[in-house]
Amino acid sequence: MLRPPPGLWPNLVAAQIFGAHTGVGKTIVSALLCRTLSETHPSYAVHYLKPVSTGPEAEADDRHICRFAGKRTQSKCLFQFSLPVSPHVAARLDGNVPSAESLIGLVSAEFSKYAKEKNAVAVVETAGGVLSPGPSAESQADLYRPLRLPVILVADHRLGGIGTSLSAYESLRIRGYDVDAVVIFKNEENGGILGNHEYLSDFFRKEVKDNFFVLNQPPAPVLPVEEDQKNVETYYERAVRDKKLGPLATLLVENHKSRIEKLGSLVVAADKAIWHPFTQHQGRSTKDILTIDSAYGDFFQTLRPETSLETSTNPLLQPAFDGSASWWTQGLGHGNPKFSLAAAYAAGRYGHVMFAGAVHEPAVALADMLLAESKNPRLSRVFYTDNGSTGTEVAMKMALRASAARYRWDSRSDDILAIGLKGSYHGDTIGAMDMSEPSTFNEKVEWYRGRGFWFDFPQVQMRNGAWTIEPPTGMESEFGPPQTFGTLQEIFDGSRIGEKYRLYIRDVLTKLVRDGKKLGALILEPVILGAGGMVFADPLFQRTLVDVIRKEPEIFNTYPSSGAPSDSNAWAGLPVVSDEVFTGLYRLGHWSASSLIGVDPDIVVNAKLLTGGVLPLCTTTASESIFEAFLDDDKSSALLHGHSYTAHAVGCTVAITALKEMKGLEASEGWEAYRLEWNPGLSDKDVVSPSPRAVCAKASSRIWSMWSQDFVSQLSYKTSVDSVWALGSVLVIKLRDVHGQGYTSNAAAGLQKHLLNGQAGESWSIHSRVLGNVLYLMTSMQSSPIVLKAISFAVLEALD
Amino acid sequence: MLRPPPGLWPNLVAAQIFGAHTGVGKTIVSALLCRTLSETHPSYAVHYLKPVSTGPEAEADDRHICRFAGKRTQSKCLFQFSLPVSPHVAARLDGNVPSAESLIGLVSAEFSKYAKEKNAVAVVETAGGVLSPGPSAESQADLYRPLRLPVILVADHRLGGIGTSLSAYESLRIRGYDVDAVVIFKNEENGGILGNHEYLSDFFRKEVKDNFFVLNQPPAPVLPVEEDQKNVETYYERAVRDKKLGPLATLLVENHKSRIEKLGSLVVAADKAIWHPFTQHQGRSTKDILTIDSAYGDFFQTLRPETSLETSTNPLLQPAFDGSASWWTQGLGHGNPKFSLAAAYAAGRYGHVMFAGAVHEPAVALADMLLAESKNPRLSRVFYTDNGSTGTEVAMKMALRASAARYRWDSRSDDILAIGLKGSYHGDTIGAMDMSEPSTFNEKVEWYRGRGFWFDFPQVQMRNGAWTIEPPTGMESEFGPPQTFGTLQEIFDGSRIGEKYRLYIRDVLTKLVRDGKKLGALILEPVILGAGGMVFADPLFQRTLVDVIRKEPEIFNTYPSSGAPSDSNAWAGLPVVSDEVFTGLYRLGHWSASSLIGVDPDIVVNAKLLTGGVLPLCTTTASESIFEAFLDDDKSSALLHGHSYTAHAVGCTVAITALKEMKGLEASEGWEAYRLEWNPGLSDKDVVSPSPRAVCAKASSRIWSMWSQDFVSQLSYKTSVDSVWALGSVLVIKLRDVHGQGYTSNAAAGLQKHLLNGQAGESWSIHSRVLGNVLYLMTSMQSSPIVLKAISFAVLEALD
Repeated sequence: MLRPPPGLWPNLVAAQIFGAHTGVGKTIVSALLCRTLSETHPSYAVHYLKPVSTGPEAEADDRHICRFAGKRTQSKCLFQFSLPVSPHVAARLDGNVPSAESLIGLVSAEFSKYAKEKNAVAVVETAGGVLSPGPSAESQADLYRPLRLPVILVADHRLGGIGTSLSAYESLRIRGYDVDAVVIFKNEENGGILGNHEYLSDFFRKEVKDNFFVLNQPPAPVLPVEEDQKNVETYYERAVRDKKLGPLATLLVENHKSRIEKLGSLVVAADKAIWHPFTQHQGRSTKDILTIDSAYGDFFQTLRPETSLETSTNPLLQPAFDGSASWWTQGLGHGNPKFSLAAAYAAGRYGHVMFAGAVHEPAVALADMLLAESKNPRLSRVFYTDNGSTGTEVAMKMALRASAARYRWDSRSDDILAIGLKGSYHGDTIGAMDMSEPSTFNEKVEWYRGRGFWFDFPQVQMRNGAWTIEPPTGMESEFGPPQTFGTLQEIFDGSRIGEKYRLYIRDVLTKLVRDGKKLGALILEPVILGAGGMVFADPLFQRTLVDVIRKEPEIFNTYPSSGAPSDSNAWAGLPVVSDEVFTGLYRLGHWSASSLIGVDPDIVVNAKLLTGGVLPLCTTTASESIFEAFLDDDKSSALLHGHSYTAHAVGCTVAITALKEMKGLEASEGWEAYRLEWNPGLSDKDVVSPSPRAVCAKASSRIWSMWSQDFVSQLSYKTSVDSVWALGSVLVIKLRDVHGQGYTSNAAAGLQKHLLNGQAGESWSIHSRVLGNVLYLMTSMQSSPIVLKAISFAVLEALD
Repeated sequence: MLRPPPGLWPNLVAAQIFGAHTGVGKTIVSALLCRTLSETHPSYAVHYLKPVSTGPEAEADDRHICRFAGKRTQSKCLFQFSLPVSPHVAARLDGNVPSAESLIGLVSAEFSKYAKEKNAVAVVETAGGVLSPGPSAESQADLYRPLRLPVILVADHRLGGIGTSLSAYESLRIRGYDVDAVVIFKNEENGGILGNHEYLSDFFRKEVKDNFFVLNQPPAPVLPVEEDQKNVETYYERAVRDKKLGPLATLLVENHKSRIEKLGSLVVAADKAIWHPFTQHQGRSTKDILTIDSAYGDFFQTLRPETSLETSTNPLLQPAFDGSASWWTQGLGHGNPKFSLAAAYAAGRYGHVMFAGAVHEPAVALADMLLAESKNPRLSRVFYTDNGSTGTEVAMKMALRASAARYRWDSRSDDILAIGLKGSYHGDTIGAMDMSEPSTFNEKVEWYRGRGFWFDFPQVQMRNGAWTIEPPTGMESEFGPPQTFGTLQEIFDGSRIGEKYRLYIRDVLTKLVRDGKKLGALILEPVILGAGGMVFADPLFQRTLVDVIRKEPEIFNTYPSSGAPSDSNAWAGLPVVSDEVFTGLYRLGHWSASSLIGVDPDIVVNAKLLTGGVLPLCTTTASESIFEAFLDDDKSSALLHGHSYTAHAVGCTVAITALKEMKGLEASEGWEAYRLEWNPGLSDKDVVSPSPRAVCAKASSRIWSMWSQDFVSQLSYKTSVDSVWALGSVLVIKLRDVHGQGYTSNAAAGLQKHLLNGQAGESWSIHSRVLGNVLYLMTSMQSSPIVLKAISFAVLEALD
């Protein structure tokens, strides 16, 4: 699925007829509904649309509609296959298999025509049951999901129909459909003993309230027999006269209106009742709030802000590329039924079960998977929390306990500091904030007290087509002049100033310790510092920092008796914490972000992509030597941390599903194509050995991005662009800002707005987030190259 | 559902045959499977069990099994209804409707008999399709869910059968079933053009791997015609000879073994890979870890620790009452399909969509609901986070910004303190920890620095049948001597020493401010201090604390120019934060816990029960006057807080479902019965007006518990019990501890162990958590009175 087309217009009431099973009477319900609408809503043009039809029975359906749906109903079929079998077979046999995208594109195009009328209604009939395959083998419910039309479910009145009707309803709900009404025929056989409609009425009244309709079963029409046809006509006439579906016709029209009203008023309600995260509400207007009706694949369906809700003939919804991956969480597409079902399975098997002193299968399976796939021999223990912020706090509690024990500090009185990089960010809770240096993010937080020392460091970016490493302003004497590289891969293979870094870092750390600072942990975001501004750190600098700390532990060891660890997997110097909440789990193209700097951390924090972009979960994975610092006869020496929903089964189960999916993509041809585009002729085998050129070992795999090198290079030449970089799924554009930089800058806001509004004639837009003068875009792990190309084009054009 | 019976024995291989629809051939698959098992596994006794059968067709089924399932197969039907219709109709017509509980109790009892054999296998056939109703109208999948047997799904080979098969599979998964295998008949009509088995094979190979079996369709047997019967016999003979279901027979036996092995090894794997929350791992053995196979209603299905996994004839699983409500999160039952479907719907419609600058329907609907139901005129803004800890940090950020602005403090240099009660606890992140006084929980946390002043306060408990309020040791001069009350309601109606409290509180606060302390917020857990030890604070003390702060703001107002707020909903003195993470949303029997102390807080934090015990979500709801403290032209003055999954749609949707459900229970007869048991003759009308007797306004509603007053009173007389109390769903037993008290006490551990092991002859147990010498038990919001009675009995007996 590339771009989901819109499915909502102000003047077009559309509904989709799904059947609980094949043969439940969808066509009769459709015909009666169209005929009723013609009577009850004479000002509406009535359209019957059957996107896919198979076999002579289909012809019969068409004839049925033509004859019985009323003269005012215009009917249309988009694909008519000749054999009376499932569309996926019939289409294949006819040698004409429309893709899901082209099929719903055609449906949307039809709607677009209807919507030009003053008032129109479209009744769209599906083929078979809810999960019966369409021509391209996707199920009906999956096929039409991007449109997410309101549903009329025709339940099954026959033997066994209670079960099929309920299951069909569940399959619709799993895919995010709203079922507006349920219709069923009364089964009069054997005195109506089956009673499907009675049982289902009890159930559905809880779900669709009064919108459960029971119809008398029509006589079976036998085509050539005119007498039979007359009986059918009588049935329809009576049903229309008795307004059997009158309330349904009214309901559709009213629901359409109220859906639009509700969508339109959502920003008003939100502006009143919601305190938005990271948002200055002063001067914020409802126009600044994006209304998201639903999401599918890489796209939101957003309410077009500029459209008048009542009179426009444009669609009300507009697909917007989720360019921030919903705050960096998305990797496998919104509304993915695989994850819905995984979440539902865990909720159905466990709900949430308490984790202290207990264990359940998904928590262990996920822990085992994280340990195995990290390929980090140090890691041995997984601790669960709910988000990156709580996870880094746990990491710091772990690290500080270990260092305080080894260096014999007093937890109640000694101020123990973390070492980090300037511009790093680890979360919004106070402890996580304290790990970062004073900045805009924390300056007005009363309880913030930065506890650390933060290194300035050289940064990587592309300028005018060249990859460069540049020292921070005024630090050329420490780090040397800017360097230029032919490829990004070369930067990871080690630059030539590792020794300069080593001397500088050792000097700084030695001086800190000599000044009496108690240094208790190193915390890093490997390669990319995310929230702090999407800064690309020289991997060699980060690698050298870890090397110095581990290889020269005497810097920290002020108590000679504490000794050096004998186990090569034990932490040395300082516990090294890798905050991979943003950078890990393939965001940068690799499972582990620290592997890109050739470091095996003592503690790793993962979140965001972990759960496939569905719900919060975080893991803090630690080495045995960290874990051992908490072992004691005193039970209060334990890590006394644990949120109520720790290791919730739903999160663990979805995470396992997501990680397996991403592992599969890693081995896919699609990703290999990206890798080759970035490093033609280079294979993983070529990059596994340590580089002899530098202090820094080579990264264990190839450096690549889903964004094309060409595109990145073109961007870097734009006059409004200061610099640019791409890695994995992330693209970062730093704009020139004459008014000063940083989080409070507005430089990127113009570009952001331009992309969101879309260009003239474009039916989709790009939603992005900015950090001051930085605009970033993120793909999912399976974004279509066609979509990426279109975005590249739009971005380049916007910068012209 | 009362107690889910176990469904797993070491010697009994059991599987349940579900059909994608009625008439798909479940009986033929069952017969062939039994017959195959007889051949391939001669050492196993083979049982065919049809719990419910209807109509003459059922007789035919029975005869079919008797004739074709092989001589070694013993078959049994538990309920045989006469008419050939859905069991829910047939049972009613026969005037014999077994409850779901009695029916699966009988199935489990059968199993228990089979399990006495050395090796046995049970093939349990359901009736109709997956969601076809059973005798008591629950669907098949819901009815048998407590047993959660491995499933063999018979898919549908007929027209439309692809859709019904896939939907049936989804309905099973939503309810937490593991589907081991899928069987389908090949449909040879019209040259096999339907191809259901081909399509489904592609799908199911991803789900059940090789365990997708295609069978030739047997000839239809016509009973009286011996020739037909012979043809059928030939079909079976050939199918058995060709070992058509041989791999399935082997699979069942192997899966059974591996399920048991996996269950048994889970603790070993967990002990190796999991860092458990709040757990001292030193000396912890795998025996201390509870293995939870699944959960249903108020019960876990736990692996019986004492049972040998291979040889016992006892069931391997034992239902254990989830007495800590899984760390206080549960209220509406584990494995509730309503929540599974709600979660799946939101995941299907949105996944997670970013919330900064955007809005979606469930987030607004939940916010509106929380604001409306709180009945607190101050509250106007909902801020979302992920758990109680992050939610209280946000609350403190809000409160401190407001007070720092009004009192003109400098956020970077002034140390601003929170006011609270001793023993309070607000979460495990550093900022939340800092809100509590130094204690066992935080003494070894390097970055903890308590920032507050914490009041000691009188406590409520029942001793020897009398409700008492007792001052802390040595504080009789401040708070007066212990007082005794006839009912708990009277304590909430206001004790007679409000004025004493007022003078004391004013003195302490005045002195603190005079000493230069900057007091910035009050944070309270209303009525019950949870994690700090389940302490019941005198509601009048808490109420008076708020009253003094609000009515005498001059205590804090050291800058005369800052002025008093004119709006009666604006905060006065100090922002009052109510941490209702544990106590709110009906845990204490009422939506709002602060309403029990007659206080409208400025900020309220909710979590835990919020999402019906499925997954993490937290709301921090604030007043407009707090919100306004963040309004500024400078965008960095915003509340710069927001987790990636802020306001995730899945959590908001499940929360709305859960809150509606609990609102319904509040109005139910069951709860009214509890209320009347606690206060006979008292109605809500009687308690709405403020009490003239005391400073404290009456609580706005009745004080009650799901635990009976009688039971609480009996407990209070036990010699090993120090004191006891019950409120809402919570029961707290404080045990006498001669070795000193507090979190590190082991006094309650003995009782805990006793309850978990269960008594001789009991087939279930009670899982509980202790806090030092306190053991607490929590019901869900809809626990059965029968279960509560049984637990009461068990607890009393354990204390004898």
